[in-house]
Amino acid sequence: MLYLIGLGLGDAADITVKGLQAVKSCSRVYLEAYTSILTVGKEALEEYYGKELILADRDLVEQGADEILKDADVTDVAFLVVGDPFGATTHSDLVLRAVNAGIPYKVIHNASIMNAVGCCGLQLYNFGETVSVVFWTETWKPESFYDKICKNKAAGLHTLCLLDIKVKEQTIENMMRGKKIYEPPRYMTVSQAADQLIQIIDRRRKEGEELGESHLIYFHLIGSVGSLSVQQFSFRGLSRNTLRYVLTFTIFRGLRCNILRRKLLGCNLQGKIVFQYRKWLNRLEKYNSLSIKS
Amino acid sequence: MLYLIGLGLGDAADITVKGLQAVKSCSRVYLEAYTSILTVGKEALEEYYGKELILADRDLVEQGADEILKDADVTDVAFLVVGDPFGATTHSDLVLRAVNAGIPYKVIHNASIMNAVGCCGLQLYNFGETVSVVFWTETWKPESFYDKICKNKAAGLHTLCLLDIKVKEQTIENMMRGKKIYEPPRYMTVSQAADQLIQIIDRRRKEGEELGESHLIYFHLIGSVGSLSVQQFSFRGLSRNTLRYVLTFTIFRGLRCNILRRKLLGCNLQGKIVFQYRKWLNRLEKYNSLSIKS
Repeated sequence: MLYLIGLGLGDAADITVKGLQAVKSCSRVYLEAYTSILTVGKEALEEYYGKELILADRDLVEQGADEILKDADVTDVAFLVVGDPFGATTHSDLVLRAVNAGIPYKVIHNASIMNAVGCCGLQLYNFGETVSVVFWTETWKPESFYDKICKNKAAGLHTLCLLDIKVKEQTIENMMRGKKIYEPPRYMTVSQAADQLIQIIDRRRKEGEELGESHLIYFHLIGSVGSLSVQQFSFRGLSRNTLRYVLTFTIFRGLRCNILRRKLLGCNLQGKIVFQYRKWLNRLEKYNSLSIKS
Repeated sequence: MLYLIGLGLGDAADITVKGLQAVKSCSRVYLEAYTSILTVGKEALEEYYGKELILADRDLVEQGADEILKDADVTDVAFLVVGDPFGATTHSDLVLRAVNAGIPYKVIHNASIMNAVGCCGLQLYNFGETVSVVFWTETWKPESFYDKICKNKAAGLHTLCLLDIKVKEQTIENMMRGKKIYEPPRYMTVSQAADQLIQIIDRRRKEGEELGESHLIYFHLIGSVGSLSVQQFSFRGLSRNTLRYVLTFTIFRGLRCNILRRKLLGCNLQGKIVFQYRKWLNRLEKYNSLSIKS
């Protein structure tokens, strides 16, 4: 049996009871380690689960699936994924391979940033297409994420932006030379995402494009008890100065999310800015006509 | 401390280890029982948790929040929600009340249908606005969910449809007379949702509206190991005959989801229709030009 087990978003204890039982029953346990990370490292998980974990990087999952599935028809193998196993589509392939090889599998779901983002107070129903903000390079600066945000905004929908993560990536040079030398891991921060966003806005403004107003809400941390922190910034007012302020924050790298909202909806669930939070709920029923100004 | 704890989507063991620890530490444990239900009943949860549970219906949560929060500043109180605590927005209000009363709170996330639906193989990123399909009455037959589906389709996005659930609802007559007499609980089935959908399509077709092709995928069960079942139907071909076939199935009431897709994407993760699943993955990279015909 192949178990695909979600680990949730916080630490080792965020696994489900069912998931933990499955992990303990398995002869091999893989930890997917390239689409997301937990607040705790591999060692902490190993201690908590009482099991040795095998790190599964992109190479192993995408090219060495046979190794993961080896003997899974006669023994139990677990594949652990931060969040939910199907948050990242890449794992569907592993399921297909298992099915094709006649290996039964079970999915044990858990929280994903795709649903846990609801803790900010924005209604999950009102999110449009989720976007990924990728690291720009010198020669590749895609702006499609901004267009998708605008499309969502036009439909009155929020956008969840997932920030890029680069783990065990090769330079093009090393890849072409076949050298298995990997760059240090990189996790996009909110400030980096905001900087890319500002560059797009600046460029389009110069071209005379009419830019609407929106607001950026970002999370410091989700899913780890007591650490949620929400800040929001007006898009129109998102200047270099504001950016400098944003730069002093770093989104927690493994969770990587921020929200862009068409209207200011300040909320801080830790109660630090309760007046804003109260304001928000007062206006919850008047959602569509909501127009709070900073 | 007020704990808001997600129970996930399956049975008692789908609570997280962290959630279970919190439940065991609490002096009072409420089980929210009107926005969703688990595959197991209250008694099974009580036995598993080793705790007596207090059923929290809509009345208690929306009007008796003070009772739930009573003494939560000096003792620990848990509020259990099927899925994730913030899947249903109504619980934000409880959080606000806690914050206003100076009661600290913690959220322990879990899987929600909003992310677990990814197990069907459709990329979560490509879902548009989620819609609710509500029970029609003699005099109230809203069609807005159909328009939202069309809007999503036009943008190339999937739609997750949450099917209505009516628990402890009063008739208008009883409500006006102030009689606390409640109707038997009702959970919308896929066939009921499909029937409402067909009525809309029929009506609009008669009015000469051009209707595109779409496909309905529905789940029998998500989150409970080994019970996932996916079927799909062409929308254009969704006739009364097909409907009769759909009628032989009943979506698992507590989880209530189906997916409408602009293109046929057959997949059955239990491997029963593997050829379709394989087809799909072959075409994963050609996603945008995907055009499989039934």
